[in-house]
Amino acid sequence: MGNQILIQEDESLEDLQLNGLVIIQKKKGFRFGVDAVLLSHFASIRRGSRVMDLCTGTGIIPVLLAGKTEASVIYGLEIQKDFVSMANRTIKINSLEERISIIEGDLKDHKLLKGLGSFDAVTVNPPYKKSHSGIRNPEDSIAIARHEVALELEDVIMASKILLKDGGRLFMVHRPERIADILELMRKHKIEPKRIQTVHPTLGKAPNIVLVEGQKYGGEFLKWVEPIYVHSENGGYSDQIREIYGDDLR
Amino acid sequence: MGNQILIQEDESLEDLQLNGLVIIQKKKGFRFGVDAVLLSHFASIRRGSRVMDLCTGTGIIPVLLAGKTEASVIYGLEIQKDFVSMANRTIKINSLEERISIIEGDLKDHKLLKGLGSFDAVTVNPPYKKSHSGIRNPEDSIAIARHEVALELEDVIMASKILLKDGGRLFMVHRPERIADILELMRKHKIEPKRIQTVHPTLGKAPNIVLVEGQKYGGEFLKWVEPIYVHSENGGYSDQIREIYGDDLR
Repeated sequence: MGNQILIQEDESLEDLQLNGLVIIQKKKGFRFGVDAVLLSHFASIRRGSRVMDLCTGTGIIPVLLAGKTEASVIYGLEIQKDFVSMANRTIKINSLEERISIIEGDLKDHKLLKGLGSFDAVTVNPPYKKSHSGIRNPEDSIAIARHEVALELEDVIMASKILLKDGGRLFMVHRPERIADILELMRKHKIEPKRIQTVHPTLGKAPNIVLVEGQKYGGEFLKWVEPIYVHSENGGYSDQIREIYGDDLR
Repeated sequence: MGNQILIQEDESLEDLQLNGLVIIQKKKGFRFGVDAVLLSHFASIRRGSRVMDLCTGTGIIPVLLAGKTEASVIYGLEIQKDFVSMANRTIKINSLEERISIIEGDLKDHKLLKGLGSFDAVTVNPPYKKSHSGIRNPEDSIAIARHEVALELEDVIMASKILLKDGGRLFMVHRPERIADILELMRKHKIEPKRIQTVHPTLGKAPNIVLVEGQKYGGEFLKWVEPIYVHSENGGYSDQIREIYGDDLR
């Protein structure tokens, strides 16, 4: 079977429970999580949009957006060759070659970015930890995905500024403790924060994920939307999360 | 009775349900609300601290802090003569003259601020709305208390920077839609955001109040604490709020 040739021994194929879509991931290594699902839900993408997903990794966000939105074309930018290969094979398995294109490259390469045209929306699930904090994972690909080894938050925001059309939207998922950095850097680069949503492990707990929408050259008005609680009081997933996952949560 | 002479006809005396403390307020005009109670609960004031409350109004925050903390001395700065008079009479009625001093003055008067010495903590419940937004209240004192007529958020933060000792803490209550302004301006003036708490009308609703702690010359680490829900699902006050109000909520 075609699919079998495409998947390597150290990889697995995961069913996304969304229009029959699947994703190739490493068995050991970076695997997509709730962040990617929440970001693809948070990003309000209009019909016909050109979308860029930065730090796309295995291409999980483009695949989810292809399934959930009417974006006309979704690019994914990724610096690591292994991930680019996995993302490209995922696209092939899902027959999404006409809607998703993966570009191997560095988001600090502004000449590359300027050659890609302008985008209605940029999505990004960037490395979370500052490069000087926390313990590095011995697996390099995990270290690059989780830490700001290859890039700093400011590089991500500068890249978004270049890619977005005037009035275009940036959708980011990050850790709440970085909110001051996110808001300060967005403003520094003329991406005005417009919407914030906090995600809490359960009600009564501090948020452990934050979703932020910014608009290039947008006017000042920031709206907070209702929080998301991942687990309900009885310990299972909340109704909100079940709805976001399409009620197919195992 | 002594108390009766001190209270004018258009004023009322409200029992704070805290160590027998009371507060003088206008019958019609700005009355303290949940913001003041939440801020005095959020502000972690160490024993022996020198505290400054900016935009003190009727002196509600100094009176609550006198009741709840072991601050050695609490100053309140207020620009409006009427409020200064009410606050001074409140202090007299509560016999708090040795712990609270109200200063009539403008927080933009940096020479005045520098003459007051340095503080361990500054608290502030500043005007909420930008001066160019919303409808002005015809009553001038309400307009000054609610809008940034007399001062901008940046003036408040600059004043805090001057007043705080190195490592001193700023505790602010504000509206969530101003969070980008707050965090950006704190950083601009070297008050590093350290703690955020959102307050929601009820669980599942977006926050309508935010509490922020910053530290002068503090290191970068921002902690979010568990949200506060004002009302419980059955419509009454939540247990959290009952505890903050000292279980005496009417």
